[in-house]
Amino acid sequence: MKRIRCPIHNHILLDERAEELVDAPEFQRLRRVHQLGMTNLVYPGANHTRFEHSLGVYELARRVVEHTEMDRTNGELAGALPIAALLHDLGHGPFSHISERLIGPHEGLVLKMLRSGRIGEVLSEKGVDVDLIQRILSDEDPASEIVSSAIDVDKIDYLLRDAHYTGVSSSVDLGRLINIMIFDEGLKFRERGMSAIESLLVTRFLMFPMVYLHHATRCAEEMLLRAMEFGISESVMTVEQMTLMDDMELVIRLWDDGDVSAEIARRLFERRLYKVAFEERFDPALAALDDVVIRKIETEITSDAGLNAGDVIVDISRFPESNLDGIRMVTEEGERRLEELSSLSGYLASAERDYWRLYVFTDRQNSEAVEKASGGSFEAFKTG
Amino acid sequence: MKRIRCPIHNHILLDERAEELVDAPEFQRLRRVHQLGMTNLVYPGANHTRFEHSLGVYELARRVVEHTEMDRTNGELAGALPIAALLHDLGHGPFSHISERLIGPHEGLVLKMLRSGRIGEVLSEKGVDVDLIQRILSDEDPASEIVSSAIDVDKIDYLLRDAHYTGVSSSVDLGRLINIMIFDEGLKFRERGMSAIESLLVTRFLMFPMVYLHHATRCAEEMLLRAMEFGISESVMTVEQMTLMDDMELVIRLWDDGDVSAEIARRLFERRLYKVAFEERFDPALAALDDVVIRKIETEITSDAGLNAGDVIVDISRFPESNLDGIRMVTEEGERRLEELSSLSGYLASAERDYWRLYVFTDRQNSEAVEKASGGSFEAFKTG
Amino acid sequence: MKRIRCPIHNHILLDERAEELVDAPEFQRLRRVHQLGMTNLVYPGANHTRFEHSLGVYELARRVVEHTEMDRTNGELAGALPIAALLHDLGHGPFSHISERLIGPHEGLVLKMLRSGRIGEVLSEKGVDVDLIQRILSDEDPASEIVSSAIDVDKIDYLLRDAHYTGVSSSVDLGRLINIMIFDEGLKFRERGMSAIESLLVTRFLMFPMVYLHHATRCAEEMLLRAMEFGISESVMTVEQMTLMDDMELVIRLWDDGDVSAEIARRLFERRLYKVAFEERFDPALAALDDVVIRKIETEITSDAGLNAGDVIVDISRFPESNLDGIRMVTEEGERRLEELSSLSGYLASAERDYWRLYVFTDRQNSEAVEKASGGSFEAFKTG
Amino acid sequence: MKRIRCPIHNHILLDERAEELVDAPEFQRLRRVHQLGMTNLVYPGANHTRFEHSLGVYELARRVVEHTEMDRTNGELAGALPIAALLHDLGHGPFSHISERLIGPHEGLVLKMLRSGRIGEVLSEKGVDVDLIQRILSDEDPASEIVSSAIDVDKIDYLLRDAHYTGVSSSVDLGRLINIMIFDEGLKFRERGMSAIESLLVTRFLMFPMVYLHHATRCAEEMLLRAMEFGISESVMTVEQMTLMDDMELVIRLWDDGDVSAEIARRLFERRLYKVAFEERFDPALAALDDVVIRKIETEITSDAGLNAGDVIVDISRFPESNLDGIRMVTEEGERRLEELSSLSGYLASAERDYWRLYVFTDRQNSEAVEKASGGSFEAFKTG
Repeated sequence: MKRIRCPIHNHILLDERAEELVDAPEFQRLRRVHQLGMTNLVYPGANHTRFEHSLGVYELARRVVEHTEMDRTNGELAGALPIAALLHDLGHGPFSHISERLIGPHEGLVLKMLRSGRIGEVLSEKGVDVDLIQRILSDEDPASEIVSSAIDVDKIDYLLRDAHYTGVSSSVDLGRLINIMIFDEGLKFRERGMSAIESLLVTRFLMFPMVYLHHATRCAEEMLLRAMEFGISESVMTVEQMTLMDDMELVIRLWDDGDVSAEIARRLFERRLYKVAFEERFDPALAALDDVVIRKIETEITSDAGLNAGDVIVDISRFPESNLDGIRMVTEEGERRLEELSSLSGYLASAERDYWRLYVFTDRQNSEAVEKASGGSFEAFKTG
Repeated sequence: MKRIRCPIHNHILLDERAEELVDAPEFQRLRRVHQLGMTNLVYPGANHTRFEHSLGVYELARRVVEHTEMDRTNGELAGALPIAALLHDLGHGPFSHISERLIGPHEGLVLKMLRSGRIGEVLSEKGVDVDLIQRILSDEDPASEIVSSAIDVDKIDYLLRDAHYTGVSSSVDLGRLINIMIFDEGLKFRERGMSAIESLLVTRFLMFPMVYLHHATRCAEEMLLRAMEFGISESVMTVEQMTLMDDMELVIRLWDDGDVSAEIARRLFERRLYKVAFEERFDPALAALDDVVIRKIETEITSDAGLNAGDVIVDISRFPESNLDGIRMVTEEGERRLEELSSLSGYLASAERDYWRLYVFTDRQNSEAVEKASGGSFEAFKTG
Repeated sequence: MKRIRCPIHNHILLDERAEELVDAPEFQRLRRVHQLGMTNLVYPGANHTRFEHSLGVYELARRVVEHTEMDRTNGELAGALPIAALLHDLGHGPFSHISERLIGPHEGLVLKMLRSGRIGEVLSEKGVDVDLIQRILSDEDPASEIVSSAIDVDKIDYLLRDAHYTGVSSSVDLGRLINIMIFDEGLKFRERGMSAIESLLVTRFLMFPMVYLHHATRCAEEMLLRAMEFGISESVMTVEQMTLMDDMELVIRLWDDGDVSAEIARRLFERRLYKVAFEERFDPALAALDDVVIRKIETEITSDAGLNAGDVIVDISRFPESNLDGIRMVTEEGERRLEELSSLSGYLASAERDYWRLYVFTDRQNSEAVEKASGGSFEAFKTG
Repeated sequence: MKRIRCPIHNHILLDERAEELVDAPEFQRLRRVHQLGMTNLVYPGANHTRFEHSLGVYELARRVVEHTEMDRTNGELAGALPIAALLHDLGHGPFSHISERLIGPHEGLVLKMLRSGRIGEVLSEKGVDVDLIQRILSDEDPASEIVSSAIDVDKIDYLLRDAHYTGVSSSVDLGRLINIMIFDEGLKFRERGMSAIESLLVTRFLMFPMVYLHHATRCAEEMLLRAMEFGISESVMTVEQMTLMDDMELVIRLWDDGDVSAEIARRLFERRLYKVAFEERFDPALAALDDVVIRKIETEITSDAGLNAGDVIVDISRFPESNLDGIRMVTEEGERRLEELSSLSGYLASAERDYWRLYVFTDRQNSEAVEKASGGSFEAFKTG
């Protein structure tokens, strides 16, 4: 077993299969894709990558297999699960979630990579059950819940890791979370450790206002999305080409060959971000607006303020759906859903509203014009 | 300035007044009063004391004074506040909150100590404004909120400290909490750091099921309370004498001179705790029962099970009231109460119900009899 | 397996045998013996106990057994070693190393306890091989090196633990130390992790000036030793009785029944420590003085200064011998002794001299007289 | 004051001058220069950058100014020192120390940047004393020792930071180090905290074998150096152009336009590193070989093994000189040099030999040929 030092889990123990997969160029590329997109513009320590996160998720899956003694009950799965965990983020394009909005869900891309390239070769050489890996990564196996559900090894790893690198204090009781896991037609948790689950859910909840939805990060990422869009329309690259790039390659291509896209990219890398010109707090109708409508409003504000495409950005907070219903707890009185036992878990979704914001961003010099133009733009869309 | 090493705050900086107060025997006694009563029977690391906690609260008050530049606006208060913080727990009897149920609130005792003994002498020699200290400790000064309110330096210190010594993971962003404090006719907080406040409140919320209300701690502490009561009725000591004892002195007195009290004390120190014979989840009427009624039920169960006084303990979870309304936030649109901005803070009180329990404890050998006797005892008291 | 939370190792996993041994009153007594004697007078967080340390050493032994897969090669030993680790400190009297100077080595007492009392009962009921435990604890088995040698699980635990509770920063790479252990006719280490060994040795080296030999701790502990001696000569207790006491019981007995011993005990608990009146840096002849000679000099200084027995304390730093020769390293070129590979390890013993001190302590009011009386007292003993 | 979150120092407090300097494109470029070159190929968490390190060094300098109350004694210097600290690494080329071997010392480049570009503009607009900054950064001011000497804020920051991101345990007592600093015609330290200094020095010593001189890092960095050299000879770029690149730009330029350089760059980014084919332990004559001789031997081995330029790399450990003599300690008996008080500090230089290695690296398939070719190559150079 190869040992890799990890600031979060102390050590990652790679078996031979994992080691060869990690050596594949497709996996090495993840070294050059930041875990948190452009968050390092706000938290300068947030330079961690999908590479180390993937190793961490593998390690946690390995520990879950060990804790649940899965090799006794299902040897095939015990072998496949950590490999599925290792590969789960392989389909991420440059800047992860930002390019995803143009490329489409990264989960789809992974599935293709399982049967092609060096990854496909290694899996086949080592006799790994690719169908099983595919089922796990497609939410078609009971074990999928370990890798991707409301509480999974992916989330546990990224919450711990994001906190470590941003310097934000957070609280995830890793040992206890694994200790209360039961694998029995899916992932279940012993009630005795319910506070560890609540702690994880709240930690995640609080990472949104502090990190994931920080207004400057939102602004930078929306600017980058615009740069990517211009980059495609300016023929710097196709969407297909972008898919295989890493973060810096994308930026350098835009610098070299782009026009408006190069300008935005340069702003980003010199951290000349737009500022908040206008903001609104939560309104259910605003929160329900889809991307198309928002872009339409953005265009109107841009034109009302006498500016050009790309000069104004409208952005609303998007909290990911988290299917907390799905969490099953094992109590002395039988199986229950988490929400029956934990009021707190039920409240979190509505508490997100406190941190919901609609922002209109623009360059400082256009602030006044954009604020004025934004003023009435949202009234018509608000809840009567 | 004297520097004392602290695992929580790195260093405590004592000025000359604080140093002499710490040297007073009344303060040195706090070295021998555990911060968390008998919690070390469950978390073996929880041997920390009121002494180090008091130093920590002093240090935090000192940092708040520094951060708010209080010496510019109110030099008197800037001088008095850390001293008030230092002394706030001086009135704790042995095992803190357990003896408090017989002695009465520790806050009253502190006030007497300000004007007598070595503490009184030092305060007077050093020209400290004792009236102001008294007002701060009696909630009669706007600055009282810094030492004792829904979010205060006392709570911040004990949450950080209890987590460090129990090994429970928790999340308190000390730097940010102090950074958003504003002192302006009481303690207020800038909205920008609201997530740090929510994080503190949730951390505290989760410490109840994990630590403060752990069933074995509850059991041990109720057993100790019975030992104290027997100790008094067996004339081992008076309540007044107990007030001045420290943890171990109390136990040794009971061992030496007590009868039933000695027996219970010995059980505790050999960790032969009672076990849970019966339990109920939250019911509003049960939760509203007062001590007198509970003791009455306890007596009935004891007798129904054919046992002797002290053999059965009935205990219900008691969450402290926390007046979250009182928290004032400073937003761009003016002052608001926390609850207007933070849904989460509003939910926590009701979420406590999930962890509420009624326990009936007894020795393992009496378990069956007590379970049977408990069966119907609570039905009549439940919400129709 | 019972899980106990530990701030150092996260969790302690007790098997049934360990759980019953921990429940024995002899073991529970360790809850009331501080790990670091009176160090909490200097580092207020240092209230940790032999109880939690013993659990920690057990846990580390358990992990070493797991890592070396000892159950495959020697099942008997794999079962016995963690139990031996658990019990290794059972013979400590009140304030550990201080009473040891009157009682004699604690290692001897443990051996008796293996075959008597509740510990003896449990070991016999559970079919533990007591002879093997005894051999391990008497340095008569190759596995003794895991529990007690230059690098052992005892040291690893106490260095990590003492740092956690004092707040001193230190560096012990637990995961790596265990990872490079090989059990093969004693404990050996892989050369690849030599830096982890050097780091441990230096951490230990630096704990002496920072914590273990801090002048105020030395002073307090020497005062306590005098209190114990007076307590015995004043018939407060016999040495045998003292052996079974815990820290606070000892102090309360002295308070209640002692004369000079009560006075010193009270000084200690009100932290009215003697101060340094005189000090010398390292001199080989001074460092070689034995206790009898030092006491003789102490008596002379006391009398020269016109004071009474107990008013003056002479103390010299005593670094424990550490047999670093014994450490065996496994390299690609075969087995080597640590000192052949690590110059640093060879230097540490002589580097201790930098921190060596001879102190003469007395009450502040006698400082001048004692300083004067000390002046010439050591010249005659110094290296020509 | 702007606050930036930092996982190492909790918060960085930027004044207005610092904020504008940080916003300069020259400074933003440091976001894209890794602190530890290619170390992330071995420690996947080591993605931290010169940007955050520079902020950290600024923050520490600010704290030293605060601690030494420098604004009272020398207001000019108190203002300039943190700015000098902030800018000290501005001259680093891509992959820091690797490109430095072709570009020349980064310290020279910084000086030019002080009087040109956006940095020059801001310094002049804000009325910063550029001459003083220049003197500090050229070791011509007594305060230079705070930024660059045997113990300085640069080292303190990078040791803490490198440990945090690699996950290596290390021990630097930041609070105490700053607390014992005295500024009085240069930087001095109070003897009372000597153990904190020794701890820092040992931490640094141990980082060399664990991180900075790890064989795989050494190999990767030597491969990259070859790629840069080929890149220049293949006219991909000039040395001047390289100076202004960041890490990824360099690599992408090599990929796009290089020949052999592109091949090596691709190997590096797919982590197909050479392996150790041959190694030697310390020999004083080998350690004294200069780069020219080593390259000559490298060429001979390459040719003996029938390989091409670039296929074989010879590398010897180079520990940086550390002028520990220079450290001045303030004792009760007057000023002393560290080496008079601390034997350990004197030993460290010679202890480095234990970790000294000469490596010959090559592709796995050439291993045998290269090992054979290396065999006799070094005998002639060894100490008779």
